[in-house]
Formats: sequence, C-alpha cells, structure tokens
Amino acid sequence: MNKNDFTHPLPLRSVRVTDGFWGSYQRRVLDKVIPYQWEALNDRVPGADKSGCIRNFEIAAGRRQGEHYGWVFQDSDLAKWLEAVAYALTVRPDPELERTADEAIELVCAAQQPDGYLNTYYIINGLEKRFTNLQDHHELYCFGHMLEAAVAYYQATGKDALLQAMIRYADCIDRCIGPEEGKLHGYPGHEVAEMALMRLYAITHDEKHLRLAKYFIDQRGQAPLYFEEEGRRNGNRFYWENSPFRYNYYQAGMPVRKQKEAMGHAVRAAYLMSGIADVARETGDEELYRTALTLWESATRRRMYITGAIGSSHYGEAFTFDYDLPNDTVYGETCAAIGLVFFARRMLEIRPKAEYADVMERVLYNGVISGMSLDGTRFFYVNPLEVVPEACEKDEGKRHVKPERQKWFGCACCPPNLVRLLASVGQYMVTARDGAAYIHLYIGADLVLELNGRPLKVSLRSGFPWQGKVSLSVTDGQAGGCIALRIPGWCGRYTLVVNGRPPEASVKDGYLLLDRTWQPGDTVELDFDMPVTRMAADPRVREDIGKVAVTRGPLVYCLEEKDNGKNLHLLRLPREAEFEIREAPDLLGGVTVLTAEGLRRSENWAADALYAPAGQSEETPCPLTFIPYYAWANRGIGEMSVWTRE
Amino acid sequence: MNKNDFTHPLPLRSVRVTDGFWGSYQRRVLDKVIPYQWEALNDRVPGADKSGCIRNFEIAAGRRQGEHYGWVFQDSDLAKWLEAVAYALTVRPDPELERTADEAIELVCAAQQPDGYLNTYYIINGLEKRFTNLQDHHELYCFGHMLEAAVAYYQATGKDALLQAMIRYADCIDRCIGPEEGKLHGYPGHEVAEMALMRLYAITHDEKHLRLAKYFIDQRGQAPLYFEEEGRRNGNRFYWENSPFRYNYYQAGMPVRKQKEAMGHAVRAAYLMSGIADVARETGDEELYRTALTLWESATRRRMYITGAIGSSHYGEAFTFDYDLPNDTVYGETCAAIGLVFFARRMLEIRPKAEYADVMERVLYNGVISGMSLDGTRFFYVNPLEVVPEACEKDEGKRHVKPERQKWFGCACCPPNLVRLLASVGQYMVTARDGAAYIHLYIGADLVLELNGRPLKVSLRSGFPWQGKVSLSVTDGQAGGCIALRIPGWCGRYTLVVNGRPPEASVKDGYLLLDRTWQPGDTVELDFDMPVTRMAADPRVREDIGKVAVTRGPLVYCLEEKDNGKNLHLLRLPREAEFEIREAPDLLGGVTVLTAEGLRRSENWAADALYAPAGQSEETPCPLTFIPYYAWANRGIGEMSVWTRE
Repeated sequence: MNKNDFTHPLPLRSVRVTDGFWGSYQRRVLDKVIPYQWEALNDRVPGADKSGCIRNFEIAAGRRQGEHYGWVFQDSDLAKWLEAVAYALTVRPDPELERTADEAIELVCAAQQPDGYLNTYYIINGLEKRFTNLQDHHELYCFGHMLEAAVAYYQATGKDALLQAMIRYADCIDRCIGPEEGKLHGYPGHEVAEMALMRLYAITHDEKHLRLAKYFIDQRGQAPLYFEEEGRRNGNRFYWENSPFRYNYYQAGMPVRKQKEAMGHAVRAAYLMSGIADVARETGDEELYRTALTLWESATRRRMYITGAIGSSHYGEAFTFDYDLPNDTVYGETCAAIGLVFFARRMLEIRPKAEYADVMERVLYNGVISGMSLDGTRFFYVNPLEVVPEACEKDEGKRHVKPERQKWFGCACCPPNLVRLLASVGQYMVTARDGAAYIHLYIGADLVLELNGRPLKVSLRSGFPWQGKVSLSVTDGQAGGCIALRIPGWCGRYTLVVNGRPPEASVKDGYLLLDRTWQPGDTVELDFDMPVTRMAADPRVREDIGKVAVTRGPLVYCLEEKDNGKNLHLLRLPREAEFEIREAPDLLGGVTVLTAEGLRRSENWAADALYAPAGQSEETPCPLTFIPYYAWANRGIGEMSVWTRE
Repeated sequence: MNKNDFTHPLPLRSVRVTDGFWGSYQRRVLDKVIPYQWEALNDRVPGADKSGCIRNFEIAAGRRQGEHYGWVFQDSDLAKWLEAVAYALTVRPDPELERTADEAIELVCAAQQPDGYLNTYYIINGLEKRFTNLQDHHELYCFGHMLEAAVAYYQATGKDALLQAMIRYADCIDRCIGPEEGKLHGYPGHEVAEMALMRLYAITHDEKHLRLAKYFIDQRGQAPLYFEEEGRRNGNRFYWENSPFRYNYYQAGMPVRKQKEAMGHAVRAAYLMSGIADVARETGDEELYRTALTLWESATRRRMYITGAIGSSHYGEAFTFDYDLPNDTVYGETCAAIGLVFFARRMLEIRPKAEYADVMERVLYNGVISGMSLDGTRFFYVNPLEVVPEACEKDEGKRHVKPERQKWFGCACCPPNLVRLLASVGQYMVTARDGAAYIHLYIGADLVLELNGRPLKVSLRSGFPWQGKVSLSVTDGQAGGCIALRIPGWCGRYTLVVNGRPPEASVKDGYLLLDRTWQPGDTVELDFDMPVTRMAADPRVREDIGKVAVTRGPLVYCLEEKDNGKNLHLLRLPREAEFEIREAPDLLGGVTVLTAEGLRRSENWAADALYAPAGQSEETPCPLTFIPYYAWANRGIGEMSVWTRE
C-alpha cells in the first residue's frame, strides 16, 4: 500500500452524467422509482407487500399508536431511500422531493431518544432490550444505512439535521460498545456501519468515528466470540447452530485479519470487505490491506459469476466454496452485486488498477442492473444465469429463482439499494488525487476535475456499452497533470489520438497515462475494439465446462426463449460460428443484438426409451440470438441462459 | 389387458439362487445384514442411531414401561426384517434365526389389542387417537408392511400366528374404514397396504381383502378430499400447505384413475403404482390397467435415471417434472428403486413384455444395490449419479447426498427394505402361467417350473452381469410348453442354440419363445452380445445433454476419483475412443472394469482471471477407468460421475 497511489472519488456534484445508457437509468430512477418507493414506504402501493416503514417511525416518534411492523431492519428502507434522494437532488434539483425528504428527516429526528438512540424496533418494543441481539437484530445495520443517508444528504443539501442526529446516535453507540470495560465488546451482525462511519469520519475527522469503525472490524470474530456470549446472556436463538456456516455466516467465525475466503452471507461479506478497504486506506494498516487483497481475490477470482453476481447458494444467501458457481440455483442477490461495486471502488481508491475497475464495470453493466426491469417498476432479488420457468415452480431447489421481476418485497433491501447506486453512479467513474484523475468507467458526463489544485472542466462522451468510441475534451480551465484512462480488460486493441495525433503515453496497471498541461479544446479520442468474445470460465468451474458465454465490451449476453425457442439447452454455439452485430433500437429500450449460426439438437428422439445408444438425435443449423443479460425477463416469462455449449 | 397373458411369480421355494453375483448378495444379507439389523432393532449396535423398535413392541405388549420412541412408522422396521427373515429361511433354513423370528412374532402378537388393532405408536400414546391421522401417521403403512411379513412368513414356514393376527387387524381396519356410512372414508397416507392386501387375498380369497385394497385405490383423491376433512376434524398439521405439492405429495391430489403422472413422494408413488397393477390384474379392470400403463410410462420414460433411480428432488423425496433429472441433487431413494422393481414385476404379471423386465433389470443391478456397501454393513438412502464430496458438505442443496454409506438410520426404511428384496430376488426372475414360463432375469438358479401342470426342474447358469453366456438345462421331469427367454433391451445380437442346434423360435414382446416338449438333458444355450455401449439420454433431459453414460450389459458404469483423479468434470470421452474390457477379480469383490483413452482438460488456466476468452486451457490424452456404478463409494470418499462429456 502506497499513500502516493491513493485516490478519492469526485464529489457527486462534480459529475453530471449525460450518458445515454446510464442517464436513462438515472431518469427512470428519479422519475419513477424514487416516487414509487416513497409510496411503498408509506404503504400506498396497491398490491405491493406492506412496508410499515414510515408508520414505524411515526409510532416511535409518538405521533401514532401501534406495533412495530415488518423486519427488524425495516428502518433501513427509509435510510436507503433518503440516501438515494440525496443523490437525486444532486443530479437534478427537485424542491418538492427535497421537502418530502426534509419532512421524513424531521420524522426520523423526532423518533430519536434523548440519549441519541434511534431504532424504531426497540423504541416501540422496549428500549431495555436494545443492543441485546447485535447478531441478528440489525440495529447497527440500520444505524449504518441511516448514517450513510445523513452524510449524503448533508453533502447534497448542506442540511445537517440528520447528520447531527446520527452523530448523536454514533456517540450513543460509542458509549455502549467498544473495547473498554463495561462496554459491550460487540460489532454489527450485518455490516455496513464500518463504511458509514468512515464516510462520517471524512467529514468530522473525529477520531472516535474512525476508532469505532476499526473496532468493529478488529473485534469481529475475536475469541471469546461476542455473538456466542451475547446469545448465552440474552437467550437469543442461533439460527446457524447446526449449519456448516455457524458464525462464518456473519464473517465472524475467526478474526477478520485471519480470513482468507469471502464467506457467509454475500451482502454482509461485501460490505465488510468494503469497510476493511476503507479502514486500511485511512489507517495505512498494511495487514488489513493484505486482508482486503486476499478477500478480493477470493471473491472475484474464485467465487464470482461472469455477470459479477456473488453468492452461489440460496441457503444463507451465501458464498459456498471455490469455483462452485451453479447457474440455475445461484443466489446472486442484487444487493451483493452492489456491495461488490462498493468494494471495487474502495480498492481503486487504494490503488488504481484496471482489475478492480474491470470487475466494477462487469458488475454494474450486468449483475446490478439486471435487478431492475427496464421500466423501473419491478425488481429481482435473485439474479440467475440460467432459468427454466417450470423448474422455478416445481423444483424446490430453484424456487428462490423467479422467472419474472417482482413489484416490491416485504424484505425490500434490493430495490432501494439499487436506486441509491444508480442515482450516484457518477461517484464510481472517476477517482483522483492531487496530480491525477483516473477514468475508470466510460460513462458520458461533464466532469469537474482538479489537477494540482486547479479545476479543469472536461466533457466525456462515450458509446459504451454499444460502441468503443470515447472522447474527452477540455471545455474550461487549464491545469497540468495526468488524466489516466482505463484500458478495459476485454479490449485487445484500441487507438488513442490526442488533438488529432497519436500521443506519447505510458501504460501502468491497465491505465493509459496522459500527463500534460491541459487546455480548453484539448481532445482525447479513444476507440476500443469491441469484438464479440466467447468467454470460458476457469476449468475448475464445474458448471461451465464445455460452455462459453458470449460477451461484447462490458456486456454479458444471454439467450432467451423469446428469441430462441424453448429448451435452450439443446442449442450449441460451434467454435467456428461467426457473429453478426445488429443494432436494434426498438428492442428492449434499444440494444445491440448478436446473432450467430448455431446448432439445435432435435427433440425428436428416435428411441422409444428415455435412454438409448448415443446418436439417436440430430443437430440442425439454427440461428441464435443473444441479447444483453441485463435486459432479460422484460418480454414475459421464458427460459434464459448465459452459458451455451460449445 | 388379456387374461391369457397373465403370469405369476414362482413360489420362492421353487427358485434356488446359485448365481455368483446375486448369490453373493444373498449370502451377505443372510450372514451379516439380517443379524446386524436384529441387533439394531434391539438397540445393541454401538454407534448406530437408536431404533427403539423392539422396545416399542415390548411397551405396547405391557412387558415394560416407557414411551414410544422414534418415528410413527418405527414398527415397519421390524415388519421388513421379519419379511426378510421369511425369505432367508426359504433360501437357507436356520433354526436359530427362525426361533428369534418366532419370538419377535410372539411379541408382536402380544401387543395386539382385543379388537385386532396393532400399532405401537397409538397403543402406547392413546388408542382414542388411532385413525385420526391417516395422512401422516403411517398406521396403514405399518399395517401393510406387517401384513407382507405375515404372508411371507406363513409361506416360508407354514406358521400362521402372525398371519392370523394380521387378518384380525385387517378386519379391524375394515370395520373402521370403508365406503359405508359411519366408517372413515380414508386411505393410507403412505401406500403399501394395497399390495399387501392383494398378497393376503391370494391366500385367503376373502373378497373383503380385495375390496379393501380396491377401496384404498379408488377412494384416493376423491372429492371431498379425505385428508382435508381429516385435518380439519382433528386439527392435524398439513406440512405441504404452501408447497406446490399439496396433496400430490401423497398421490391424492386427484382420483387415481385421473392421474397421468408419477408424482409426489417417489416411494409412495411406486408402492401405489404396484398396488394399482395388482388390483387391475385381479379385477380385470381395464381403466385401472390403463392408469397403471400411463403411470409406468410417466415414471420410466420421462422421470427415471439411467440407474433406475426415481425421485429427482430431496424436497419431498419426490418426482418433479418430465425430463428433470439432475444428477447431483437427485434423491433416488433406495426404497423408491425397490418400489419400481415391485411395479415392474407386477406389470410383467399382467403382460410379459421385455420393456418391464429391462427396467427391472436396470434398477436391480444399479439403483437398488448401490444402496448397500459391498461388505453389507453400510447403506445409502440417496443414490446420486454425480458426487463432489466438498459440495455435499458445503452446498445446502446437496447436503442430503452423502459421499459415503451410513451405518444405520434413525429413519431406517431403506436397509431392511433392501434386505427383503435381496433375500427374495428369486421371485423376480421368472413369472409363469399354465403353459409358459418367462425368464426375465438371467440369474443362475435351480428352478422348478410347472408347464401345463407338470413339474420341470431346470438349471439356469448365467455369466451376468459380466458375460452374456446363459445356459438352461432340464435336469428332471418332462413337460410340454413354452419357455420364454427375454432378449435384453441392451443386446443387439445374440446366438441361440438348443441341444446343439439353432432352433425354430419366434420372438414376441422381446421374448424368445421356445415351445416344445422338454426332457431331461435338453439344453438351451444363449450368448448375448455384451458390448460396451455409450448411452445418451433423451435430449429433453437437460442435465445429460452432450454427455454419455457408459454401460455394458445390465450394468451402468461410472468414473470414480480413486481411478481418475479429482475434478471428474474435466474428463471427456471422445466419440471415437475405444474401450478395453478388463476383468479385475481382486477389485471391489470382482468386477469387470472398462478403460478408454479419454481427454482431460488441464486445470492450468493461462488466464489470471476467473473468465477469459475461450482457449486458455488444453486437453491432453488421459486414460479413463470406469467401474460398475453399484460398486462406487467402497474405497473411501471421492468424486463419482455416471455421465461424461462426449
């Protein structure tokens, strides 16, 4: 870890997304999802599962009578919504939305207890029980999410009511939990507070906040195990008692610095890894950084789907073991993919290396946005790579896999999480340090960079994900320094022109470094080759052996029944098949479709038995149509498959 | 259905198995398993799960104090053991074993209530509750198994104490359950009583017994649904309330004659289908026969593994849907395979057709005997076709799959079921009618046939499953009639010689018909070609596409890690690979091993990422060794796979 490598994301206000692809996602989120979710949080969406979220805060604030409704982590839905609103207001001012958010914040603050405590479940059900089940009751998780909202809202609006409330809550937690005698030696059962506290620390520079984040990480998994003692003391039920997971479900089976594998619940794991990276960077802790690197490699080189999905198993929504990546029983929770984006950017903040950005791009363009329907009204929790609708219905092992996106979930973690990410996608495209700005994602945007203390306005235009052409031009300002442009891992060949001429440029860690004095009118033109690529998985991935996945640029493609008929497993993509790249502006909101001449094994089986000597069925030529994976399940229910036999 | 086609099995005493293969299984069962299981039933096996079975009977008989232990169907373990003993005594007299069985029967009879009722669970827990949960409490299941034991023991020893007790119990049930007003309009939650009553009827010719069996079948699934009413009336819990199964789990979602698919719990389904065939044959009921045919086709042409295993899913230990035959998450319960053997023989009794015998042979030589270790001390419940031990441990969806056989189960249905089948295997090899005897299985045995009323002793010698040579010679008696010899479905070419000369023989339904006057010294010699065959599955079987299974004669072969190294999925068997057939007398109790030159994809993956453009790893030649599937998991824990990529 080298401090000179460190970068930080641009403030969201310095990134105005103009991109056709992501801009359209942002508009959907702003126009539809945020208002829809507000209605959902208020239980005003007919046919959707009840939320009870706002109602819980009203009861906690003494404004109405009633019982707490929903999950112990119901508060976090409002937190994620508020965080999303903060980003939305930055992207596009909206006084009415801001008023609604202010009122919601006023409600949250009204529920806060005199000592700073702020969790509706315990405020309603009895404060004497608070902090008695850190393992499963998500108090610190809700705290973390609301803290993220507070920071984001403060950064977006300058209003600090929620921030001050959350600082008081952080103080309250700090008085109750920590290494000192008399305090609980605990940590979150579901991580996120670690990241959140680091965001708070970046504003307050109050050592207390850093210390608490670091404590949560270092205390996790230490013997004697806090969760075990807590359970004994308070008679809590241990759901994973007889499971192979046990405390690994919570990444607490051993001290964090000893962990070599991304394990347990995938969302928790991804949030923990993100927090580890944050603390490692802030403290310069080499050992913790090595832990982050080890977990990164475990998660992304041995336990990640080609779509960037993580979590192979429905059971525990969790990681299983190396190279165990079944396509049809996968969990691949949208939230876990989002968590992996968080982790990737934090690794980039420590060291800008294309590997991290490659994963970030893979996850964003595939396993994250597959979570939302194109019209922004329906959501996937689970993001499978192979679906047979009949199996989702009749095979218990696949019933968690839905062949169509759902309206809203009683456990509504994914939709608002997706919204906050999409609204703030600009925060993932560039990280910078004093003398250099690293462009990680080619998202069209107007950016305000700062190089060696001098602002530089640049306009980035990108054909991604459909075309490899990218241009970057300086529109205002003058500054000397390096603009580093990522060479995507999927790109074998590219051309680079600066002001009409091939420049001198070095490449480091997968970035083209353009170090010069930048002036208005300076233009960088890049053209990344974006061929169709047949990707294979590491042969140790049992489920993908003998198969290929079709990709082009950042996008993973898939076969859908709609285009290719039933029984997708009968299809084969011979090695020599050539692809045609076809723009389909009217299809699925405008996509590029890939077609190839494949083969289909006949269903007409000459034998009258289920098994017969090989050679009873023929293969005949059959056109194959591949669509981008993220866009699947937008044309009714049908089969889908990412991996195709070769 | 044509009455002239009907056949019946030979009495077990008319079949003395001399076969090297099955004789050895019988010896293991007689020498080891029956004594071992008696110890287990008496809770005298250190380290094995407690049974409580005998103890329950002692308590029910008032000979000791205590509570009922174990499952509601614990009585059936003793029933299956007694049935196995009956067959064992026929195979090989054993006065001491017979004395033990007599004492056990005396105990069972002592537990019987004055009105004939006989189930330890309710005798101990309160008779007022009896027949209040036919759906789940297995009373009629235990009745059925004990009745089968009673019939078998009577046939083996001539002793009728248990038979008379069970006739009284049948009368008791008949007084309580039936179509008449005031009776419960119920039927077994777990079938078996149907078959058992038909065996009883064959002895008693008491219409009451036939009527009850037929009622159980015809009443099943009729509206208003008995189980639903029973549940409401007695407040029983309905475990499948929110499952897609609902009453189909019990094959009771619709009237039996309307059923088109083998569905629900596979053992239950197989036992029901067997009972349907029994009643159809006995009553000449065409509609019921068509139901049996329809269910046969569903079970064996669309829902059966190549090993003869049935039940694709752990959930409900059940059938799922057509062509859904996953190899690694399969259930394939040993008991269900046994049930399929029962069904196949009953279909043969209605019409001798090689298709039924082919399935019976497939199941017996593969999915049934895979359930027991070669030393007869350990058992599989679940019989997978693909195993990766790490996945059995770490993937919840595969935790029901064990990579090694277990000693004894708390729910000990499979081991004693296997024992009763192996002890009585002679009852599956021949069925006969007045003028004809059909040899279905080529198991070496001394047989007493009866042709047109005249006994004929024949000696059958067979090289199965290792060689295709079979000879049949008349050793005593003289009789005119047809000896029909099955041409196995896997055999493309054979030679037939009678008394040294090719005879005139017609073929019907897959049987060679040899109609003549048989005399001592007459000898039939058959030589069935037994080539190695690469079998494919119907292309609609998603999991087997692009793969082949290696078979030879009746045996399905598999790859084991022990011979082929880890990561069996990396192996491929090219279409042109040639097989070598090698006898290995010292391996696995003496087997024929198949070897071929295959290919192994290298685990050395040139890319440093999990996914990379195809072509990063090479295939190199690699010898493949296939062993018979039934013998897998006898050399320690390791991977196993039946299907290999082509």
